[in-house]
Amino acid sequence: MAAIYTTSDTPLHKLSHQHILSVEQFEPDMLESLFARSQKMDRQVSTGGAEPLLANRVVANVFYEPSTRTDLSFQAATQRLGGRVITTAGGVHYSSVTKGETLHDTIKTIASYSDAIVLRHPDRGAARQAAEASDALRQTTGRPVPIINAGDGIGEHPSQALLDLYTIKDKFGANIDGLTIGFLGDLRNGRTVHSLIKLLALDKCRVKVACIAPESLSMPSEYVEFARSREMPVSETTDLQEAIRGLDVLYVTRVQRERFVAQQLDEVAASVFGQPYDSLDGPRKDAIKPLAELKAGHEYLSARDAYVVDPMMMSLAPKNMILMHPLPRVNEIPEQVDTDDRAYYFRQVQNGLYIRMALLAAVLDRLA
Amino acid sequence: MAAIYTTSDTPLHKLSHQHILSVEQFEPDMLESLFARSQKMDRQVSTGGAEPLLANRVVANVFYEPSTRTDLSFQAATQRLGGRVITTAGGVHYSSVTKGETLHDTIKTIASYSDAIVLRHPDRGAARQAAEASDALRQTTGRPVPIINAGDGIGEHPSQALLDLYTIKDKFGANIDGLTIGFLGDLRNGRTVHSLIKLLALDKCRVKVACIAPESLSMPSEYVEFARSREMPVSETTDLQEAIRGLDVLYVTRVQRERFVAQQLDEVAASVFGQPYDSLDGPRKDAIKPLAELKAGHEYLSARDAYVVDPMMMSLAPKNMILMHPLPRVNEIPEQVDTDDRAYYFRQVQNGLYIRMALLAAVLDRLA
Amino acid sequence: MAAIYTTSDTPLHKLSHQHILSVEQFEPDMLESLFARSQKMDRQVSTGGAEPLLANRVVANVFYEPSTRTDLSFQAATQRLGGRVITTAGGVHYSSVTKGETLHDTIKTIASYSDAIVLRHPDRGAARQAAEASDALRQTTGRPVPIINAGDGIGEHPSQALLDLYTIKDKFGANIDGLTIGFLGDLRNGRTVHSLIKLLALDKCRVKVACIAPESLSMPSEYVEFARSREMPVSETTDLQEAIRGLDVLYVTRVQRERFVAQQLDEVAASVFGQPYDSLDGPRKDAIKPLAELKAGHEYLSARDAYVVDPMMMSLAPKNMILMHPLPRVNEIPEQVDTDDRAYYFRQVQNGLYIRMALLAAVLDRLA
Repeated sequence: MAAIYTTSDTPLHKLSHQHILSVEQFEPDMLESLFARSQKMDRQVSTGGAEPLLANRVVANVFYEPSTRTDLSFQAATQRLGGRVITTAGGVHYSSVTKGETLHDTIKTIASYSDAIVLRHPDRGAARQAAEASDALRQTTGRPVPIINAGDGIGEHPSQALLDLYTIKDKFGANIDGLTIGFLGDLRNGRTVHSLIKLLALDKCRVKVACIAPESLSMPSEYVEFARSREMPVSETTDLQEAIRGLDVLYVTRVQRERFVAQQLDEVAASVFGQPYDSLDGPRKDAIKPLAELKAGHEYLSARDAYVVDPMMMSLAPKNMILMHPLPRVNEIPEQVDTDDRAYYFRQVQNGLYIRMALLAAVLDRLA
Repeated sequence: MAAIYTTSDTPLHKLSHQHILSVEQFEPDMLESLFARSQKMDRQVSTGGAEPLLANRVVANVFYEPSTRTDLSFQAATQRLGGRVITTAGGVHYSSVTKGETLHDTIKTIASYSDAIVLRHPDRGAARQAAEASDALRQTTGRPVPIINAGDGIGEHPSQALLDLYTIKDKFGANIDGLTIGFLGDLRNGRTVHSLIKLLALDKCRVKVACIAPESLSMPSEYVEFARSREMPVSETTDLQEAIRGLDVLYVTRVQRERFVAQQLDEVAASVFGQPYDSLDGPRKDAIKPLAELKAGHEYLSARDAYVVDPMMMSLAPKNMILMHPLPRVNEIPEQVDTDDRAYYFRQVQNGLYIRMALLAAVLDRLA
Repeated sequence: MAAIYTTSDTPLHKLSHQHILSVEQFEPDMLESLFARSQKMDRQVSTGGAEPLLANRVVANVFYEPSTRTDLSFQAATQRLGGRVITTAGGVHYSSVTKGETLHDTIKTIASYSDAIVLRHPDRGAARQAAEASDALRQTTGRPVPIINAGDGIGEHPSQALLDLYTIKDKFGANIDGLTIGFLGDLRNGRTVHSLIKLLALDKCRVKVACIAPESLSMPSEYVEFARSREMPVSETTDLQEAIRGLDVLYVTRVQRERFVAQQLDEVAASVFGQPYDSLDGPRKDAIKPLAELKAGHEYLSARDAYVVDPMMMSLAPKNMILMHPLPRVNEIPEQVDTDDRAYYFRQVQNGLYIRMALLAAVLDRLA
């Protein structure tokens, strides 16, 4: 059942010439308008090609770290709308590091050549800095060059959260009140789940949230409280087998070994020396590493094994549930599950293209 | 004398929405149809521009190892037909290695954004795996995304063999019965010569084949037998000076020092320890390396010197012979030969563009 | 005050199908015609899009070393004119190094796929070699493929000098006779200032030149003499505070620590061993390094501090002066200066796009 949106493009015009830095910029009417547009993009691409809304427009893809999925989907989104891409292909990184140019100068330079910039950067806050650089240039040229945040470290990656919500509605319809959405895996460090929780709240969805994670990787309290304060009930558990039976959506994230080690280093440092790990000197750091590795290893293996969503686990899940994952996956969802009708992660990938097409058309003021 | 092809596009339609994985997919009527199309592409590019057959089409270039020639010629082929290219520029490699994504997932992702994928990969069989991933996605989306194998390790590189045969016919006409085609250099490891021999047989060409190589790098018997079983006589020799006098085509490949070393390591290991090199322990491996290097060095130098096609050697060749090479060359053909009218290797490069344009139009079902 | 050019495109037609290797190819009428075209490109881009002069044209960006600014501006220039870009994204480097292909062969290959090649290479003379390879191919195909030198080591980077001169005229009008142009920083090694001095002379500008640099990095005498022989008075000083009061243009370049070290190594080697540094053996080289580093450090720090153009320094400058810099900058111009109306370095960046659009249209004979 595809969602039916009863909306015009009007709310989407609020994004015209705006930077896209955070999910917090999106209000319910804008989301509905964006999703309606994305659906239209889907129909057009599937039937021979989209309107050339971005003709004569140049979008710069500036990736300070590689990200196949995000990079290629923005390239494709621009070009399926008839726009042109200029891209640094890692070059900006080497070049700027070698020559010591600031992000500010690099962005002002690239904004001189392009009409919008898609930025991926390892540092939180980089997208906002880039937006300031673009605004500074605009003061002299009069020309707006929107920055689209395509992931800034542990900060935000708004187009990911948008495509996630769009995919849920793609399945359950525009009104998703009453659903129970489970988040599984590393909820402590998972940028995507943090953003999606925020976006569900901003969209005033009356859903229930179930957090399923090992204790050391549980959802930070700020997000739990954020959700509860907006009337989204949040439950927490470590037991996937029990929780999965009541879910409409299961959103899986990767559990990375390094996260456990980092966590254990801090815990062991606190218990042995009464100090955070980073404040220790070299010999002390080295002294506690083996213990932390050992403890982390046990915990990682048990978490990894407890949270694998395999066909057995899927047999416990409701028939109508959908299984999501931001990808890349490693071993948390085995490939046998891909043929299950409830596997929706490649539909997420596909939807990412349409969301990004709609976003680009909106910020470049080319909706008509 | 340009070949004259009396054919329609009909046989080429068999490639519509098909993966291009191996030369074995090509039958004589399809080859004739493909070459006729390539010739048309040549004419159009030379007189101002080709028809925009790939308008609204997005082709992804996914190169897990760099290959300037193949990468750029596919990029140019797509764009000269009005299509758009998305490209990972090495990023897919780093990204997927770091995050551990499988080729299967990467291809399903990229297939979600594109209409065809050109894949270069160091591992034999990678193209077929990619085709399976694309087919798996098609089952849910209904959308075919052809994979074009642009070289998978020691496996296949079909567009190279196609452009090679096209180039021979470009010179000698569509019917090349009666020609003698010499292959020179490292025939043991040369992917291009293996594919071309197969393609000549599949095209039912009544040509003679002369293999000219040092004994340790001679044509594997499977290819010799394959040719003979299809009524293509094969002769073998180590003597280029003698053989070149009777050739219509001399196809040169690089002789690489490392190949001789690898060969010698196995031979010495067998004679000293009675075991293959790879099964030896570290100290034994180290012990025979100097001897193998020494023996390989002598053999390499004499092979390299014996098989340089310089102006002197070309003076022994027939006036009508053509000299081919898949490039890159190192020192097997000195630059002075480039001005010889018989030097056809840059014509091969050029023809690669037209063949790839025709292939892309065919698999994307945009021939009309 | 924008420059007013009273010219036709006729002189620019001299560039049709020509390589752009050096500023020395440009005569005053060609410059006027080029700048008039660049101004037109500016107007068109600013009001919705340029004419698709490069439709059906493919430009190859071949960068053997990264250069964000130059790479992206040529990509944008091609695409804003409706042309297509094929690009190696560093791949050409790895690929050719690994396989040992010559620049000659690589360029002949890429010229087979494209209509023009933009080349960046670390070695002086590489652009000329590339032009010879392109000419060699043209002899057999009849098809010209212009090479545009986008920087070849310490050689030339003509489009940079062209955009610099265009920016000066952008401010002061087409006739800049009587201006005083100051060059600041490392004038010994600065490729951009050498080219700009030559170009000013070739344009027969009756300007005065003020060279402001530490003694060890002063303008080479060949350029000073070149200017003087063309009736451009040249003064030399180390005192920026004094010189800046009389300038119409201050062109700043980076002062790099490594340049001082290299300079000191030679001086110390000469005084201690009576030999150039490069001719010394290893132990002797090592022996003088610490002393050279020490001397260089002092000199670098005092030069760096003396030549920072900060708001204080700008307060000494004329109200109508413009401040230029080829970028990237490090700390020679602090960001606070960016909001000064006289800061013209991002206008240079922007003008680079228009100059490159005009150049591409000219060499591809697509002016009409």
